[in-house]
Amino acid sequence: MTRVAVIGAGPSGLAQLRAFHSAKAKGAEIPEVVCFEKQADWGGLWNYTWRTGLDEYGEAVHGSMYRYLWSNGPKECLEFADYTFEEHFGKPIASYPPRAVLFDYIKGRVEKAGLRDWVRFSTPVRMVTFDQERQTFNVTAHDRVNDRMYSEVFDHVVVASGHFSTPNVPSFPGVDTFGGRVLHAHDFRDALEFKDKDVLIVGRSYSAEDIGSQCWKYGAKSVTTSYRSRPMGFKWPERFEERPLLQKLVNKTAHFADGSTKEVDALILCTGYLHHFPFLPDELRLKTANRLWSDSLYKGVVFEGNHRLFYIGMQDQFYTFNMFDVQAWYARDVMMGRLSLPSAAAMKADFDAWRSREEALEDAEQAIWFQGDYVLDLLALTDYPKFDIEGTNRTFMEWEHYKSQSIMGFRDQAHRSLMTGTMAPKHHTPWLQAMDDTLEEYLKN
Amino acid sequence: MTRVAVIGAGPSGLAQLRAFHSAKAKGAEIPEVVCFEKQADWGGLWNYTWRTGLDEYGEAVHGSMYRYLWSNGPKECLEFADYTFEEHFGKPIASYPPRAVLFDYIKGRVEKAGLRDWVRFSTPVRMVTFDQERQTFNVTAHDRVNDRMYSEVFDHVVVASGHFSTPNVPSFPGVDTFGGRVLHAHDFRDALEFKDKDVLIVGRSYSAEDIGSQCWKYGAKSVTTSYRSRPMGFKWPERFEERPLLQKLVNKTAHFADGSTKEVDALILCTGYLHHFPFLPDELRLKTANRLWSDSLYKGVVFEGNHRLFYIGMQDQFYTFNMFDVQAWYARDVMMGRLSLPSAAAMKADFDAWRSREEALEDAEQAIWFQGDYVLDLLALTDYPKFDIEGTNRTFMEWEHYKSQSIMGFRDQAHRSLMTGTMAPKHHTPWLQAMDDTLEEYLKN
Repeated sequence: MTRVAVIGAGPSGLAQLRAFHSAKAKGAEIPEVVCFEKQADWGGLWNYTWRTGLDEYGEAVHGSMYRYLWSNGPKECLEFADYTFEEHFGKPIASYPPRAVLFDYIKGRVEKAGLRDWVRFSTPVRMVTFDQERQTFNVTAHDRVNDRMYSEVFDHVVVASGHFSTPNVPSFPGVDTFGGRVLHAHDFRDALEFKDKDVLIVGRSYSAEDIGSQCWKYGAKSVTTSYRSRPMGFKWPERFEERPLLQKLVNKTAHFADGSTKEVDALILCTGYLHHFPFLPDELRLKTANRLWSDSLYKGVVFEGNHRLFYIGMQDQFYTFNMFDVQAWYARDVMMGRLSLPSAAAMKADFDAWRSREEALEDAEQAIWFQGDYVLDLLALTDYPKFDIEGTNRTFMEWEHYKSQSIMGFRDQAHRSLMTGTMAPKHHTPWLQAMDDTLEEYLKN
Repeated sequence: MTRVAVIGAGPSGLAQLRAFHSAKAKGAEIPEVVCFEKQADWGGLWNYTWRTGLDEYGEAVHGSMYRYLWSNGPKECLEFADYTFEEHFGKPIASYPPRAVLFDYIKGRVEKAGLRDWVRFSTPVRMVTFDQERQTFNVTAHDRVNDRMYSEVFDHVVVASGHFSTPNVPSFPGVDTFGGRVLHAHDFRDALEFKDKDVLIVGRSYSAEDIGSQCWKYGAKSVTTSYRSRPMGFKWPERFEERPLLQKLVNKTAHFADGSTKEVDALILCTGYLHHFPFLPDELRLKTANRLWSDSLYKGVVFEGNHRLFYIGMQDQFYTFNMFDVQAWYARDVMMGRLSLPSAAAMKADFDAWRSREEALEDAEQAIWFQGDYVLDLLALTDYPKFDIEGTNRTFMEWEHYKSQSIMGFRDQAHRSLMTGTMAPKHHTPWLQAMDDTLEEYLKN
């Protein structure tokens, strides 16, 4: 029997499981699917842990999630086409749910499908090798509960281990003698720790924007963000400012590129993440920057160097859950022989066309339409339920518009589901006043 | 040519390198030795980094070292018999040096020997397998600078990767909603971060004792340590107290087993470390608690399941650097065929004798003499320079005595070198007043 190894049980890995399950539910014979998950539960980043650094088994903590994280984009843009929020919660819910609500939703689909026993929990993958002669993979995994390392043979491997787990941590002069708190966004857990503190954030992307906002919301004395290229440019409230790049720290004094200084208590490096696959040898390992069109992947999914190897969710992302879905459905159909790959020349031409379009992108709006077109391209190839990409793109546009109007208020907006057509209710409490991020509180009428 | 892989270039791995170098310097033909080191420099834990969690390549940070760490035992008890402090520094120095001084000393011996090109830096080992037929090891390593993973064949492997790098992190009810700073001792870097804070430490061993003292020295508002079995029992100064085990956290209120409570700002888990070898399959992986007589190692060094595999420094330790030396010299002589291993029955009898003696140990004093006897046992077998074990044990006794007299003052004492007979000078500044932990400051006359 054909065997498929899926590495990771987060949104990408679970999309792959659900893709196979969906085919099975329609009567197809599917391969045996084994999902290896490092954590004790599924959900990937959405499975919150208070732990940082290394976990109870000494494995690198996967989670980069923090308390009080609310979706920073509309849930309508990430909704599963085969399992809507309304189906899961039994009623329409507001557009920017906190983590616990999204975690519940992600789990809901795979619990409904009964896929838990496809997953081997607390089992990191240590090494994958490929046997050229047999055209099979040898996957070595480590069952941490029983402290047993073992190897099994698979016909296909799907890498779905994410790329927002391994921090990119630059150094700054003086950081080693700073005397305050230093952490990467990956290790940020609770904004309350920074109450009454002067917080310095390096970075200008989503982590900087959101962790800065969280710290401000939960009572930081001041938030200063520091950018390399250009400021985020939102209309920040008082006690929140943007400065050019941090040059050095002299004890607790931060020096910036414009010559200005500020006394700070904490340095939070929102400096991005690395694609990190310590379990993959050179010939199987994706090497790419975090970009909309990843290197070395045909259709953003099939590894150029080995067509039995697939990567899900390795792109920079506007689209998330439902993009992982279309990727997983596509990978499934290649693995099941429903789709065949074209000639090497055709694959290269396809790749090059996307890449050159990607390289010409000028702003976020173009990037959203680009990624929408990519989803649309995959959507045409499989039986994943069709959904309104143009409408999704337009919802992203609304979101961007609301964010530029009010960075602290955009989560109070509501959007219409592209899957059900239902308009989301407004949430009962403005985000800035909503301190309780539990599922129960969010779902209250 | 016979090839030896040494995993780790800390005190244990460098002892192994120096052991081979010493034989070569005396005219012996030695195997080719390749040392794989995850960090960019040698020195192991003594190579300080400000980083925590994952390093610049996404590898688990090895270091558990913090700023202002001064040796918590007399340097006279860890002195290399073949390279004294006096030789390295050109003069006698005081007995409890800060980290930078010990780091310099460790490096001094291998720099003198010219061993730097035996080490492949920034190169973590990913996997080791053993070929039963060929009786060789396949070592897969990852050159992070060039992002190249490769495998090489070795006749012997020496695991010297330490066991104070992977934190043992228990959970406590309420830790996930604490709202303060939570960290393991492994991630502790700078006591200044805890100035004016109420610090709670869980643990009663060396980390708890020393991190508590550091925080107190550098201005923590209060230090509370929490023990499971029994208090450390030192004469702590004001603002420092011991309480029974932490039961739960309710926001920032810590509840203890005696029903008492305390508001705290930070929770530092000094809860020990795990032996963690993710690069070793079951049949090669040491599984042991941190104890004076490790499981599964003949003479504390040779792996029972494979006599071509050696572990250095895996015991709980009073003796450190010079114990690693006698272990490394012994491992070297087994690898070079100068020593042969006895029958399985004799090995088991030897192991059992040590184990039953270990199990009968009743206090620290007995433990010190036990480990001294172990060093003496190995010392008789190789050409490592003989040194005064009884004198070393007695120095440990003095140290324990001074600690019980004054936990904040024992580092102001001086001890006599067992190697040179020189009495150490008293340090120019009492430890409690010495805020500058640089090498330059320490070596000032």
